[in-house]
Parts: sequence; structure tokens; C-alpha cells
Amino acid sequence: MYPLSAGLYAPRNCWYVAARSAEVGRVPLERFILDEPVVFYRTEAGEAVALAGRCPHRGYPLGRGRIEGDAVVCGYHGLRFEADGHCSHIPSQETIPPGCRLKTYPLVEHWEWLWMWPGDPALADEALIPDNRTPTLTDPAWVKRSPLYWKVEGRYQLLNDNLLDLTHLTVLHADTIGGGDVAGTRERHEEGEDWMRSIRWIPNAVVTDWVRKSRGIVGPVDREIMLTFAAPGFHYGHDRYFPAGADHGNDRPSLDIHIFHAVTPATRTSCHYFASSAVDPVTFELSRKHPPDTGSAVKIFTEDVEAIGEIERLLGAAGDFEEVPLRADVHALRGRHMVQAMIRAELSSQGAIPDRSRPQHGDAH
Amino acid sequence: MYPLSAGLYAPRNCWYVAARSAEVGRVPLERFILDEPVVFYRTEAGEAVALAGRCPHRGYPLGRGRIEGDAVVCGYHGLRFEADGHCSHIPSQETIPPGCRLKTYPLVEHWEWLWMWPGDPALADEALIPDNRTPTLTDPAWVKRSPLYWKVEGRYQLLNDNLLDLTHLTVLHADTIGGGDVAGTRERHEEGEDWMRSIRWIPNAVVTDWVRKSRGIVGPVDREIMLTFAAPGFHYGHDRYFPAGADHGNDRPSLDIHIFHAVTPATRTSCHYFASSAVDPVTFELSRKHPPDTGSAVKIFTEDVEAIGEIERLLGAAGDFEEVPLRADVHALRGRHMVQAMIRAELSSQGAIPDRSRPQHGDAH
Amino acid sequence: MYPLSAGLYAPRNCWYVAARSAEVGRVPLERFILDEPVVFYRTEAGEAVALAGRCPHRGYPLGRGRIEGDAVVCGYHGLRFEADGHCSHIPSQETIPPGCRLKTYPLVEHWEWLWMWPGDPALADEALIPDNRTPTLTDPAWVKRSPLYWKVEGRYQLLNDNLLDLTHLTVLHADTIGGGDVAGTRERHEEGEDWMRSIRWIPNAVVTDWVRKSRGIVGPVDREIMLTFAAPGFHYGHDRYFPAGADHGNDRPSLDIHIFHAVTPATRTSCHYFASSAVDPVTFELSRKHPPDTGSAVKIFTEDVEAIGEIERLLGAAGDFEEVPLRADVHALRGRHMVQAMIRAELSSQGAIPDRSRPQHGDAH
Repeated sequence: MYPLSAGLYAPRNCWYVAARSAEVGRVPLERFILDEPVVFYRTEAGEAVALAGRCPHRGYPLGRGRIEGDAVVCGYHGLRFEADGHCSHIPSQETIPPGCRLKTYPLVEHWEWLWMWPGDPALADEALIPDNRTPTLTDPAWVKRSPLYWKVEGRYQLLNDNLLDLTHLTVLHADTIGGGDVAGTRERHEEGEDWMRSIRWIPNAVVTDWVRKSRGIVGPVDREIMLTFAAPGFHYGHDRYFPAGADHGNDRPSLDIHIFHAVTPATRTSCHYFASSAVDPVTFELSRKHPPDTGSAVKIFTEDVEAIGEIERLLGAAGDFEEVPLRADVHALRGRHMVQAMIRAELSSQGAIPDRSRPQHGDAH
Repeated sequence: MYPLSAGLYAPRNCWYVAARSAEVGRVPLERFILDEPVVFYRTEAGEAVALAGRCPHRGYPLGRGRIEGDAVVCGYHGLRFEADGHCSHIPSQETIPPGCRLKTYPLVEHWEWLWMWPGDPALADEALIPDNRTPTLTDPAWVKRSPLYWKVEGRYQLLNDNLLDLTHLTVLHADTIGGGDVAGTRERHEEGEDWMRSIRWIPNAVVTDWVRKSRGIVGPVDREIMLTFAAPGFHYGHDRYFPAGADHGNDRPSLDIHIFHAVTPATRTSCHYFASSAVDPVTFELSRKHPPDTGSAVKIFTEDVEAIGEIERLLGAAGDFEEVPLRADVHALRGRHMVQAMIRAELSSQGAIPDRSRPQHGDAH
Repeated sequence: MYPLSAGLYAPRNCWYVAARSAEVGRVPLERFILDEPVVFYRTEAGEAVALAGRCPHRGYPLGRGRIEGDAVVCGYHGLRFEADGHCSHIPSQETIPPGCRLKTYPLVEHWEWLWMWPGDPALADEALIPDNRTPTLTDPAWVKRSPLYWKVEGRYQLLNDNLLDLTHLTVLHADTIGGGDVAGTRERHEEGEDWMRSIRWIPNAVVTDWVRKSRGIVGPVDREIMLTFAAPGFHYGHDRYFPAGADHGNDRPSLDIHIFHAVTPATRTSCHYFASSAVDPVTFELSRKHPPDTGSAVKIFTEDVEAIGEIERLLGAAGDFEEVPLRADVHALRGRHMVQAMIRAELSSQGAIPDRSRPQHGDAH
């Protein structure tokens, strides 16, 4: 489906951020992931669990049930399912029918995010979690902002498109992070088998009032923006501000913000958006004098969320359209191509183990 | 359609509760019954009438018209239709075109309910109205609660399923009528051609706070729950509380509540739910000391209404699913089978008179 | 589609009112016209412009962009489109790809309305704008009420049907403009190739309180109602009140209200409704003593808007139905026929110039 080719939706054999750590606890949380209702909760030991979100008996949402020990209990007829998906109790009978179990989803907690694998569990290798490539996120020395979350009323690839073409900073985010001629500056493109990277060096950028106020940067700066896409839904990179004229190969930036975005299909026309950022300890100490204005950061993301929702609205009301590709889209089109290749590989393997033996080039920045 | 077989919706040649008496008067009421808009009102003599709810001239809803004498007048161009459906006046012409009439639906008022027959009027035999089988409802000596009504945002058979499997009392209604191990107690199943009955005897049941407060029952009790399904949409029975250890074949219950539920398809994915209860005069006198808490009774039904809505929500968002049948479902599956048999008989007869000569076993309890 | 034949929607090679003058300025306005998003704005010289409302780059709605000089700038990546639809600036590159342009729609401002031609621009002849046939609208001597606007949640032909059968005045507008037996009075029908007219002479009409209060008419009157349909969406005419018994061929009416309605398809199941009225200077002076009650006029239109919405609601929920045609529908059925003929001529010509050389009979009243 647009903006991918007809019939293609999303790859399943990969890790997606499904929830923030703080959202999942001893009360069940329902969330649609790739068109399937999933229920999330924590065991008594605190381990997060993801199970199919619909009771196989009568279809009641388990997100409306309750947690008992390490199990979720259906709120309708009381079937109890343990964290491994097996049914351990049915109030109305002694024996458990063989098919009475819930699909389980591999779920791994890294930092404050819960990564879920919607596809074949046998293929769920933790080493493939894309944040392994960006140690900053899990390095406790770096100071992270608690992750933000949006339910976006638009298909996930529109949000990937957004993150793969940063020329929109100059327009959509003109008042905040659009400082310097991002749109007019050509990017350097790097690419591996399942990742790609865009790097822009913007000399002598005039920063916005927003950057001045929220980040304490005053004069013109040299700015380096990098964003790496670990297909199909993770984006990490940095937004670095150097004193104008600095030797950015050797000098230390005045401000080095690492950024992390995770995009997860919810339904065919909606997605989940998780985002956070991190600064190194030195920068953090400096920024204490200029405490970050969280409200303003929310403003940036809200602009993107609304833009995706508006595009989806027109797709729904007026149908698909013929895109005019620009030079700035080369990177985003490669990203779509990468996502499509993943989907096609899954479709052609029909359950066979896809070739994930390829080297992981998208290592830390 | 789920939970019935593909393509099967609802039988038409049968009586359904369409409205409460108090809802229908000298202002037209529109209600969808089996996917058709129907308009209800009363003649000057007070007789309730059910006519097709859409003016055949330009499709305006007659529920937005007004009542004039015994007729409903369309609010758009003023066509007047009498209670027998014929058009008696057109403001813009003298003659009435032959096809200008409304379909009428047989409608019978029993107690505070209006029973409607959506199918072939020639087959509408009042003797088939299922409340004939439970004289309590129309016996003035029994003290009835005025009927409650809910529009349920879920397909009607989900609500039938609910009423055919009372093991949900232990879980969904744990705080109110779930006292005693209803789920763990096997039911006795009885069945006739168009009815079925479930009876449970629960000795030494600990009652809930809600029963204590709202019904004045204190100690452990022996409880008998019976519910009879007169397909396709009427359920009647009793909830009897005996002193623990009583001879329930001979002793008089401390409390004998008769219950009545009517389920009527509105659209493919919504239904109407009517419910009431009755107590005998002696019990009523006793219960005066413990006036019933209507708010709490509403809470019970609201739990069911929300549960059906939640199941429908997942059916809409995630599609049908593979059910795991339990032992407790034997009764409910027979109920689905009975409803399906009625639909199939209608489809195969293609308008021929179905065989309703079968004996009516579902007599009064 | 109902009430037209299956598969027929709306003619494209004709003028439709798309907006009121006051709605269009230096902030972009999005409006769906015949299922297409269109963006409206004014150039620095004040000329109103209509362009395709979706950026061809990434599908962002241009109605969320901003106006810069004579151009609209997309709010996502900053593509700038001039009033002739060509792209004059892309922030991220120097060259403009050949296909990067917006469809333009011919747009003409007459009085306080903007007329748009959704079809082949080569055929957009200003002489075809149907208000040319009713000079009152653009004659500054006549005193016009500023036009009203409603988004109607029903398909446009239902609103045309409404305006083509004024017998509904007697019922739907009984309290306002329904005075005199409009429904019971036969109309005179006149017709040309692309227009038709209905004229009713109602002697000795008792006027409503509403007319008494809002228009200062007291005693019984002779009333003449004329409405001309310039297919597919413009209706103009008059509502004339004479002293009872007047020689309406020679006498001057006490009150002569000219009325103008424009109906424009928005989507398959919704439309735009524009309406205004005018009185001659003499009448205006008289009516100063009885200042018009705008609130009451809004009430009339709201009744129509709600009626159309209600019919559409039933079409959506209960499907199409078999219409019973009345004598009063002869006029409206001719109107549908005329609209269908326009659509079929366009379909058969497949882009060839349709025969618009027919004489324009629907001249001024």
C-alpha cells in the first residue's frame, strides 16, 4: 500500500518498539501492533510480557482483564493465561483444551523501551535489536529524556518518509529545529544491507530563537545532523552544534544531542511513534544552566504527528496520487526500497528462515 | 456471520421485543430492527403501531414526522400514512398512487413490551410470543421492575452467547450477582425444538455484599439459577435463594427473582437489549425492608453491554478469530445451532410457511 | 448513484459555486469539490485562485500551507506553487522537475461568489456561468443579503431534488415560508435544454407569523413563486407577494424577493450549499421598517440541511429504496434527467468538446 508498492504492508520478522517501560505494569495494556491486538503486562518479578490480546474462547480483549501472579485473567469467563501463553485455569472445567493458549511475542526491555518481535519467534535474535548499534541509548552515563509517545493517525511509512527526508526541518519545523539551511544543504548518503545514513554539515547556521532559549546556543554555529535508519522502524542520530569555523573532525561540539525515533505499525492507517534524546554528561552539566523546555520539544513532534495525520486524511478522502520525486527523496526512496525488500524476502521465504546472516554495518555513531 | 456461520444473520419469522411500552406514544420513534428502519407510535385509541420507517416518496425518515389522528405524516412533503400502512393524503395531489404505502409489522403489546414480527405477517401468530411461556411476566400479582433498555454496540448473537453461558457471572459480575461458584457448578441442560434451558443448583453459596445490601440476604444460601432460551431472542428464568440445606424441591425460597431478557438485532453489528425482573407478592413485601438498589442493577447490565461492545470492537479491528470451545459452551453452541436452524429453515422455504406446528415445550417455570 | 442512475455522479464541465468571496483571502482554504481537494486563496492583487489541494511531492494538504506573494507554499517541504500552478521554488534543489505542478481550476468571482470549473479548462467559458441569466444577483442596485453557507452531509442531488419540488414548503417549512397552499397548487413547468422553471400562482394565501414579522406582510396576499434550475447546481427565482386580488401581470408586488441557491458536490455523500437573496431598492426601503430577521432565515435553510442529512443517513444505514413518484415530482425528475444527460454527454465525448452551442433559454426573470 502507498507509499510502498501495492499489497505490501510491513515486515514481521524484526524488532519494533511496542511500548515504553513505564506504560507496562500490573494492569494490562492493549495495543495494536501490525493489525493484531496485543496485551502487555509485567510478571511479579517485573518482567514485561506480550501476549495475543484476544481471549481465544470468546474474543474478549485481555486488555480489559486483570493480572494475577504472573498471569493475565480474562475479564469475561476467567480463563487464566500464564506469561508463556499456556492456559493454567478455566473456572468452569478441570481440563485445559489443547488449543487453549495465547500466542506469545518475544519482548525485550532495553533502556525504557520494550522491543517486540511480531513474526516467527524462532528468528527473534536479541542481537538484532537495532539500538544495539547506538550504545548511547543504553549507556547510563548519557542523560536521556524520558521517551515520548504518540499514536499517529497515519500509516507508518509516512513517518519513516518524514524521518528519512530532513529537508522538512526548514519548513515544518522552521520555528524550532529548522535553523540553518537544512533543506538547501546536500546530504551524504551511506548505506548497508539493512541500514542507511544521512549526514549533513551546515556551516554558519543561524539558530532559531527556540534553540537559543532551549539549548543555550547563541551565535552562528556549524551544525552536523546525522540520522541512521535501521529498517524498518528505528532511526538514531545526532544534532551537533560546533562554534562556527570549528574543525569538526577534531573539535568537541558545544552541544551534542543524540536522538532516537521508533516507528511501529499499529494498523494499516495508523502507527506508534516513540522518541527520545540524550546528551553526554558534560553537555548535561552545561545545559543545567539552560534547562530544556520540554513543552517546546513536544511542539516539534506534534508538528510531525499532525502532518502525517493530514496526509493520511487526504489518502482516505481522495485516494492515492502520483508522486513527484525530488532529489531530496533519493534517501527516502532507498528507505522504502529497504522496507519492501524485507517484506518481499519474508513473503518469498513463506516461513523459511530469512537470511539474517548479513553483517550489521549500522554500528554506533 | 460470526458467531453464526458465514452468511447467516437472523431469523425474521419470529417475535422480537422492539420497544418498551413507555417509549412509544404520540411522537414517532425510529428504531432499526434487523437492518430496517421502523417507526413506532400509538393511535388515538392507544394502540401501538409499527410501520416501515422510510417514506417511499423521497426516503425521509418518518421518525422525524408527526402523528396526526391515527396516522404518521412525513415531515418532508406531508404524505400521510394510516396505521394499516395505506397512504390517506398527499398534499400535492388528489389521487394516491397504487404503490404508495408502508409495510406494516405485526406488533403486540404484552405487559410493558412491544413485540414485533419482522417477517411474513401471515405467519405472525400471537400464540408464538415467547413470554406466553412464562406467565409471571404478565401476571399482575407479580411485582415487576420497569424494563430497562440498552442499545448495544455489538451483534445480537454475542449477547445471546452471554446469556447462554452463565459461567461469566463469576468473573464479569463478581461484585454483584456472581456469588457462589457459578462457573464451577455444572448445569443441567434441557432442550426442545425451539427452546433450551440451563439449571444450576449451587449449595452453600456465599453471597456478595451487593446481594446482602440490595436483596437482604445474609448467610450462606443454596442458590438455584435457571434460564430458558426461547430462540432467537428471549431469555427467562429465575434466581432463587434458599436457606442453606433447604429441601429445594419442597421448601419455599427466601427470595425468588424472575428474570427476563430480550435481545433484538438492530443492525449487523448492534442490537437492542431489554431486561426486567419480577418478584412474587410475598417476596416483594419482604423486600420492602430492603428496597432494591436500581443503580446497582444497572451496573450489572452495563458490564454485559460493555463486554459485548468490546468483543465487537475487536471483531471490527482485527477480524474473526478461531474459537476454542469449552465444556460450558455446549449450551451456548446449541443455542447458536437453534438460531441457525431457524434462519436456514426460512431460507430454504423461500417464503413458504415454515413448520411452526411443533409443540411448544418451553412452558412456564 | 441514487437518486441518479447507477454509476452517475456529477458533470464536471460546468461552473459550480465553490466558495463565498469572504472565505477566500491570504490564508489558504481547503475544500473538496467533486471528490477532489482544492485549495483557494488570493494573490496580492486580490485575484482568487483555485489549485489542486494536494502537494504532488508527498501529498501534504496545501490548505495547511501559507501564502507568499502570489504563491502557495507547502507546509511540509516548502515547495512553492504560483497561481498558474507551476512550481517556482523547491528549497532542496535548484531545478524544478517537469511534472512538478498543480492542476489549476478556472475560477471566476461574480458578486460574492467564486465559481469554479472542475472539468476541462479549455471549455470554461465565463458566458456559461449561470448567474448571467439572473442579472439581479450582480446588479448593485438590488440589495443582497450576504450569502450563507452550509456543508450538507448528503449527496448534492438530494438538495437539487429539494429545490426542484417546492411542495415541501407546506410541510418542512410550515412555520416560515410555507404560507398559502404551495403543495396544493399546481406549478407551470417551462424547460430549455439546460434549464427548467417552475412557477406557482397562489391566490389569497394566508401568510405565516414568520412572514408577518420578518417581512411586514399582514393580510392575505396573492403569492407567486418561481424557481429556475440552471443545471447542474444553480437555482434562482423569486417569491412575490401581491395585495390579494391584484393584477399580477401589471401591478407591482408589495414584496419581491429574489432568491439564489447554489449546490456543489463535495464528495459522493456530501455537498456545499450557498444561498442568498435580494430585494429591489424600493422594497428595501420599505423593509427597513421591518428589518429582516436573519436568525429566522437561517432556520429555514437549517431545516433543509437537516432533512438532506437525514435522507443520507438512511441511505447509508438501510441502502437504496424504491421510490414512489408523485405528480409533483415531474419537475424534479426532469431535473435529474437533465443532470444525467450532462454526465452522459461528458462520458460519451471522453474529453471531446461537448455541444455547448445550444441556445441559452434560461434568461433573466
